[in-house]
Amino acid sequence: AAGSDAPFPAGVAVVRLQQPPVNGLSLALLTELCLALQKLEDRRACRGLVFTSAIPGIFSAGLDITEMCGRSEEHLGEFWRAVQQLWILLYGSRLATVAAINGSSPAGGCLVALSCDYRIMAENPKYNIGLNETRLGIVAPFWLKDSLLNTVGHRATERSLQLGLLYSPQEALKIGFVDELVPEEKILARAAEVMGQWLAIPDHARQLSKSALRKQTLDHLLMHREADIQDFVRFISRDAIQKSLQKYMALLKQKQA
Amino acid sequence: AAGSDAPFPAGVAVVRLQQPPVNGLSLALLTELCLALQKLEDRRACRGLVFTSAIPGIFSAGLDITEMCGRSEEHLGEFWRAVQQLWILLYGSRLATVAAINGSSPAGGCLVALSCDYRIMAENPKYNIGLNETRLGIVAPFWLKDSLLNTVGHRATERSLQLGLLYSPQEALKIGFVDELVPEEKILARAAEVMGQWLAIPDHARQLSKSALRKQTLDHLLMHREADIQDFVRFISRDAIQKSLQKYMALLKQKQA
Amino acid sequence: AAGSDAPFPAGVAVVRLQQPPVNGLSLALLTELCLALQKLEDRRACRGLVFTSAIPGIFSAGLDITEMCGRSEEHLGEFWRAVQQLWILLYGSRLATVAAINGSSPAGGCLVALSCDYRIMAENPKYNIGLNETRLGIVAPFWLKDSLLNTVGHRATERSLQLGLLYSPQEALKIGFVDELVPEEKILARAAEVMGQWLAIPDHARQLSKSALRKQTLDHLLMHREADIQDFVRFISRDAIQKSLQKYMALLKQKQA
Repeated sequence: AAGSDAPFPAGVAVVRLQQPPVNGLSLALLTELCLALQKLEDRRACRGLVFTSAIPGIFSAGLDITEMCGRSEEHLGEFWRAVQQLWILLYGSRLATVAAINGSSPAGGCLVALSCDYRIMAENPKYNIGLNETRLGIVAPFWLKDSLLNTVGHRATERSLQLGLLYSPQEALKIGFVDELVPEEKILARAAEVMGQWLAIPDHARQLSKSALRKQTLDHLLMHREADIQDFVRFISRDAIQKSLQKYMALLKQKQA
Repeated sequence: AAGSDAPFPAGVAVVRLQQPPVNGLSLALLTELCLALQKLEDRRACRGLVFTSAIPGIFSAGLDITEMCGRSEEHLGEFWRAVQQLWILLYGSRLATVAAINGSSPAGGCLVALSCDYRIMAENPKYNIGLNETRLGIVAPFWLKDSLLNTVGHRATERSLQLGLLYSPQEALKIGFVDELVPEEKILARAAEVMGQWLAIPDHARQLSKSALRKQTLDHLLMHREADIQDFVRFISRDAIQKSLQKYMALLKQKQA
Repeated sequence: AAGSDAPFPAGVAVVRLQQPPVNGLSLALLTELCLALQKLEDRRACRGLVFTSAIPGIFSAGLDITEMCGRSEEHLGEFWRAVQQLWILLYGSRLATVAAINGSSPAGGCLVALSCDYRIMAENPKYNIGLNETRLGIVAPFWLKDSLLNTVGHRATERSLQLGLLYSPQEALKIGFVDELVPEEKILARAAEVMGQWLAIPDHARQLSKSALRKQTLDHLLMHREADIQDFVRFISRDAIQKSLQKYMALLKQKQA
């Protein structure tokens, strides 16, 4: 659901993720998000975008695993194309984008956070953020790896990805995974303030600078999009991976019960 | 004006920028600087180069905006080629190069600082340094962006360029924009000391290491030099950009009056 | 000499370098190491590798200079191919690799440390680590430079290589050359603990992540291996370099006497 909020500067849209229970990125949600983002991208009056969660304690739990379990190759391909599309739209957005990370943000939940221009996280020590894919026996795609590389550098990315590290807000700040921490109740007010700084810069100059720094990383996916889909479908369809995902889902259901 | 100073090791040239009022890089100054640098480059006995300002409080205010306002395409092209040439000479210099940043160094003023091998800044909190081009509605060229990337990394460069940030000496030190701070009156003495460390290394080994790390960035401009000139001329000739520059110049004149 | 130790998780091999007096990497030692590593790489049950030294105070003094002094081009080429091979095996290893740096590690001694997944150093202030090649008038090969780039970033690599800096453990930790410091007597126990973290991740996911981050750097050498050998042979055969190495060896002998 996208909407505009009182304390925000004119021209700023606020997207509040609300897909209970944990903002899992299902195919339906991804499709809706991409449509909403494309509309904002095309709306002349829109200059900035704040991403946050409407669900207490969770920013986004990442990709919806049910979309990857026991599905046809066609479905898997359609799903992955939507995942790519969300990243392409956000990482290459002409808008100034701020992530107000008001809850945990593991794995695919970082897709949104890492493609924004600025990351503010609630300083609640119960929250964590990170690309923990390897712990489930899967691997972050190359373009998400590149987003992390461009954020925390090569060395921190090596450790982070190989160990599937989840960082507390303090740790995330220390390695540069997020840009600042604020008390949870102040996160939207701070996002509005930060957005004001970004919108103080003439759009065309800001956009040219952003594009100069992100074009190569974006082009890498745009030029290998079909191969990346095929890689994903082939990998995720493996028996061992399917078993590992099913085991993980059973664990999740047990936790919820 | 280039000269050699008493406290410096043998073989070290000191370039003191002195173009009142603010060491603006005019076409004339750029041409003179490039000639002087080429001479030092060709002089066998010369091994090191210290860059500093002879004007209190300002290292260099950057490109001289009058060279970009209401000028012919030919003039703009000639100007930009000289700007490129200064960077090519300095970034690829066989000499050990130290910037003694004894004043503010916005936008193009960073061109000199970022292409040196080492940056010492006076710790006067009134001074600042940064690529603030976007605040004027313009954009740093890709090779200056690459110099910053190679100095502070990808993440800091994204923020820095998009927001046109000017850093205090303390902030500049923290993100690695400069290498150390010293009291203003000790900056040349410290530059001499630092130069001693760099000249303690056999020249050929130091030069090969430097080239291995800078060649790719240099080649990128060398192979796209004409296209970069055309991009600059086309961009800066736009009505909106010309108006924005004229507005900025009027503001500067008002300040001076 | 490779062996397995009591406190280490199952599937972890410990390689203890023991080539008196200073673990110099001679052609014979390199050949033995490469054979041992290839065997571990091929042994299904082996999942992790800890590298340490059996000689008090020294991790490895680097390449054995006698292999480079007054030798035939054929010998130099064979030697360099073995040096490359050690790096290729270690940097691209499917195993989780931890360096337990329990002594000084100058120049080629860093080859092993920088190609591991994790670096623990003894916090003894007498030890140092760094690529100090330029101080001897020689230059680290591009793939070792790339290993450092991927560890400490571009800026620190520029200073580090050009000045041939040797870092104390504290300094090495600060710039990210090593990942943590421990009291010397606890280094193997800590390596075992760390290895436990790395082996908690499913091997195939960890390996795919590692490969995604290192493949480009590895391929660069694999595709230019012969040219790199020729460059080395040509450079090291120069009269000036030979004289410089002989001078250095005389100095070392004097010290030992």
